[in-house]
This record gives sequence, C-alpha cells and structure tokens, in this order.
Amino acid sequence: MADRYDPTPRTRIRRLPKRASYDHAAVHAVLDAGVLCHVGYVIDGQPYVTPTLYWRHGQRLYWHGSSASRMLRHLKDGVRVCVTVSHLDGLVLARSGFHSSVNYRSVMALGTARLVPEEDKAGVLEDFVERLLPGRWPELRPVTRQELKATTVLWMELQEVSAKIRTGMPIDDAEDYELPVWAGVVPLAAQIGAPQPDPRLDPGTPLPAYLQEVARRGLLQRCGGAAGQER
Amino acid sequence: MADRYDPTPRTRIRRLPKRASYDHAAVHAVLDAGVLCHVGYVIDGQPYVTPTLYWRHGQRLYWHGSSASRMLRHLKDGVRVCVTVSHLDGLVLARSGFHSSVNYRSVMALGTARLVPEEDKAGVLEDFVERLLPGRWPELRPVTRQELKATTVLWMELQEVSAKIRTGMPIDDAEDYELPVWAGVVPLAAQIGAPQPDPRLDPGTPLPAYLQEVARRGLLQRCGGAAGQER
Repeated sequence: MADRYDPTPRTRIRRLPKRASYDHAAVHAVLDAGVLCHVGYVIDGQPYVTPTLYWRHGQRLYWHGSSASRMLRHLKDGVRVCVTVSHLDGLVLARSGFHSSVNYRSVMALGTARLVPEEDKAGVLEDFVERLLPGRWPELRPVTRQELKATTVLWMELQEVSAKIRTGMPIDDAEDYELPVWAGVVPLAAQIGAPQPDPRLDPGTPLPAYLQEVARRGLLQRCGGAAGQER
Repeated sequence: MADRYDPTPRTRIRRLPKRASYDHAAVHAVLDAGVLCHVGYVIDGQPYVTPTLYWRHGQRLYWHGSSASRMLRHLKDGVRVCVTVSHLDGLVLARSGFHSSVNYRSVMALGTARLVPEEDKAGVLEDFVERLLPGRWPELRPVTRQELKATTVLWMELQEVSAKIRTGMPIDDAEDYELPVWAGVVPLAAQIGAPQPDPRLDPGTPLPAYLQEVARRGLLQRCGGAAGQER
C-alpha cells in the first residue's frame, strides 16, 4: 500500500504549497486528533456544512447523524461530500497585519458518502465509542435493534485527501523585524474539564478508568494515541 | 428591525427542533464566541469546505483568504456559500450509546459571498483585528496598497440563518437510570495559552495590554464580549 494519497487537481494545494502534506501519517495524525468534523454536501446547488462527530478506521472515515442522510435514502449510489477537520493551534501575530496568520492543522477529504449497512452498524458504533473512551462500550446498556435502525452511519473512503499545516513563529518582512511591535504566537488548544456527574447518578458510582485517563491526559491527546493506530 | 431571522425551508431545523434558535441574540452570541468558521462552496458539483477566520459586523459576516476567491474573480454576481460556526462544549455520556450526545453551539448561515471592494478593505481588516485584539491595529506596521490588493475579503449578509444548541445532562430512558453506568458531561473548551514571544523580538518589548487581557480572560470570552456588541 502506498503511504501517500495521490494529489489530484482538486486536492493539490496551490496556495502556500509548502504547508501541504499528502502522507498517510500526516493526514491520519490530524484526523485522529479530533472528534468534530464539518461535512459539506450540495442540495439543489446550495452547499450545506454540518458539524458532526467522526472517527477513522484504516482508510475509512465514519460519521453518524443526519448530515447527508436525508439525501442518501434516495440516492443509492452515494452522495458527493467534502469532510474537513481542523484544529486551530494559535494566533500568529506578526509585525504587520499582512503577515499575521494562524497555526493550524487541517484535512480536507473529498469523496462519496455511503450508508453503513444495517448488519455492520453495531460493530462500527462500538469502534467509535472504544476509540474515544476505551472500555466504555461493554459498560453501556446494549444497543437495541430499533435504536440501530434509527441511527444513520455514513462512511467514505480516504482517497482524495490533503492536509495543510502551519506551525511556528511569524515570518515578517526583513525591515519589519526592527519595529517595536509585539510579535509571537498566542497558543490555542482544546481542553478537557473535570467530568461532571449526572445529578441522577448514584453518588457511589466510581469514575471509570477511561475518564480518569481522559482527565489526566486530555481527550484529544488520547485520540491521537491509540486511536491513531491502524487495526 | 426584526430581532429574529425568518426560518426558511432550508434553515428550519427539522431534527430535534427544540435545539433550534433563530433569534439575532442567540445567533450572534454563537458567532461572536468564535474565530474559525467553515465555508462551504461548490465547484463543478463537488462541495468544498474550507476552514478560515471570520468576524461579524452587524448583519454581515466577513472572512478573508482563498476559500471562494478563485471562483469570485470570475463570478461578479457572487457565490453561493454556507458558513458554519461550531463550538464543541462537551461529551454527553448517557447510560446507552443511543442517548449519548455532545453539547455544542452552532450556526449555519446560507447566502451569497461577495467581494469587499478595494476601497473598503483597510477599514474592514482594521475592524477584524480590533475585534480580536483591541488596540493592536494602530501598533502594526501600516498596511500597504500592494498588500491590500493581494488580500481577498469576502462578506455575506446574515439573513437565512439558524442556530442549534445543546446544553445540559444526558436524557436517558426512564428504566436506564438505575443502571450502574457512569453518566454525565465531560466538558470541552477552547483554551488560550501564555503568549510566546518571537525569539527575534527585542526582549525589552512589553506584553501589550490586549494580550495581558487575553491571558487573563481567554480569547474567546473576549470575542463574546465587546465584539458581540452591535456598532
């Protein structure tokens, strides 16, 4: 298997190409560091962008919910989508507005969304929960056939994909470095807070190991670890 | 002026309508709490979703960069877009997978992107910087005519807009509340770190007041404050 997605005219990054990457490792690292994606699709010529949870398994991206599901019920051949994942890592403050920027990691995946068939849904949803909070799925009240029916799960092949990443300090015009303007990076990151138990939870219920882990390491770091491994 | 966006067949929220809001106040609060949006547009039937910085001024949403700019150079009448802003506020862990969810605030705005004319660009960019970091624009090396020419700024009218918000604890099936499954909310939030000065910055350069403020209050709270006021 190639370790790189072939850039196409649609995914080749023309603006600031030095920020681009098509390597599986780089793309998967960005995907596995997140939980929320933005799915783009078209109805009657109008684009729509729906935020939703996603997860990756090998060369497949999965998400569930309503985003393209109404369309998909009528279109057996699938729906053209763009799934974008982005992490805003910092404000990059240069000595001029023009060279100011942001640090970020993003992935854009173009392709065709398809429905996960009924018989595969339970396994795919288990995979989702276990990647996020390993050990939680077996604790949950088991999913019913009716609930599975009511859940739309979509997937697309990772094939036409690019990553775009900016890191580091501002790059100013040579003559601007002498100006007395504060320059640098203001870091931004997704942070996890202390788990808040449901008031209706029996106070004797212990905090599960996977939530202790999350509280210690942060959710997204967790995702970027084990969930990033191919299985 | 009405204080509410009229829902249309395209923005009326059909799935979980109790989470919907069309009030200006609710929509603007979600918009003003963020800096990164996802812009959806269509080329040759293929949807694209580009992450980019945005800001709001009254009933206009602005963003800059390349997202729809290639198209716009050829289409004087504007480009159909969907701009989506979303904040992931927490994982909602129910006793079943089916009732598990996330807390979030999101806005979807449908409309037509247009170019900000050359003569208005400087003022619009000043507005952007001042909303994010009040006091920074006058400190910056002034923008040049050439830099303005190289910068594409887009805007759309806020007209066909909806917000969708979930807050609070999981809602489980009545019989599931007795199960010994940990349930509650794992909060997520965007956090700001300590400003990192450019190594090439004169060490005597003081940290500007707007960055001290950001370090104390957090960037996004700042946005939700002054930037949220109509002007």
